[in-house]
Amino acid sequence: MEKLESLIETYYDFPKKGIAFKDILGIIRDPEVFRELIFKMSSNHVIKNSEAIISIEARGFIFGSAISFLACKPMIVARKPAKLPGDLIQENYNLEYGKSSLSIQKEALKRFKSFAIVDDLLATGGTINCVERLINKSGKKVSGSISVVELISLKGRNKLDFPVESIIKI
Amino acid sequence: MEKLESLIETYYDFPKKGIAFKDILGIIRDPEVFRELIFKMSSNHVIKNSEAIISIEARGFIFGSAISFLACKPMIVARKPAKLPGDLIQENYNLEYGKSSLSIQKEALKRFKSFAIVDDLLATGGTINCVERLINKSGKKVSGSISVVELISLKGRNKLDFPVESIIKI
Repeated sequence: MEKLESLIETYYDFPKKGIAFKDILGIIRDPEVFRELIFKMSSNHVIKNSEAIISIEARGFIFGSAISFLACKPMIVARKPAKLPGDLIQENYNLEYGKSSLSIQKEALKRFKSFAIVDDLLATGGTINCVERLINKSGKKVSGSISVVELISLKGRNKLDFPVESIIKI
Repeated sequence: MEKLESLIETYYDFPKKGIAFKDILGIIRDPEVFRELIFKMSSNHVIKNSEAIISIEARGFIFGSAISFLACKPMIVARKPAKLPGDLIQENYNLEYGKSSLSIQKEALKRFKSFAIVDDLLATGGTINCVERLINKSGKKVSGSISVVELISLKGRNKLDFPVESIIKI
């Protein structure tokens, strides 16, 4: 996992001044590292203890769908405004840089009881907390969350009321 | 693959009046169908004949990353405006509903010569053609494209100058 960390690049003042953006795209350009990462994430108890995976748009899709493939678990998606058709539930959140909302298709939640939230990055915890509120509002359970990278200093995990896993802590 | 087709839902007048939107998210809620689809896409000559995969934001990531995992091929991403950090190349395109642009990180293209474009849907061919122009501008080669669904009546493949594959033709 040492190589994994070396593939993450930091861009300063992106997307806004004052933000040190962690770019995880180097990981998916190295298939051996990517595969090792997906094996590791898929075998985590957070994935094992859930009926389905929720991936957060858009980089969360990259890791969520490979985990869904390997672990043979259904995946549903939490998406940004105006992206999903059908009956939706929606919640707002504050991001490290800005404000937005996430939506899930009601139909997608119906068949499952417990969910593992997958995203590339745990920063302030705003987006993952938003998905938690979406799930709880629907009377369902979050079995935990798993991220590739966790920015420890932002204390995102303090916002979350379930097992919080991350592969690299920076 | 009959089951695959039954999992695709049509939403009329989404995201704009006059558009019949094909929602492929039912596929990823059924892990057995999703896995079968990924095995099929990964073994396609378009994937086999490429050094790397280019996935188009955002639903393209879902299929691209699972193919990247299974076929053990590097993946790079084509993203919408203001999403990627670093030095980018950018091209504009006309969509079935609107106008936008796609960008790729220059760094990501450097190491590879030939690319397979992966997306969920081939409609008018505007986005895939945009990625083709990005690749050609960089002096690299598109080995082909592969989509889950192709909307035959929109004749998107006529815009594309390489092998065009799709799993379901509607």
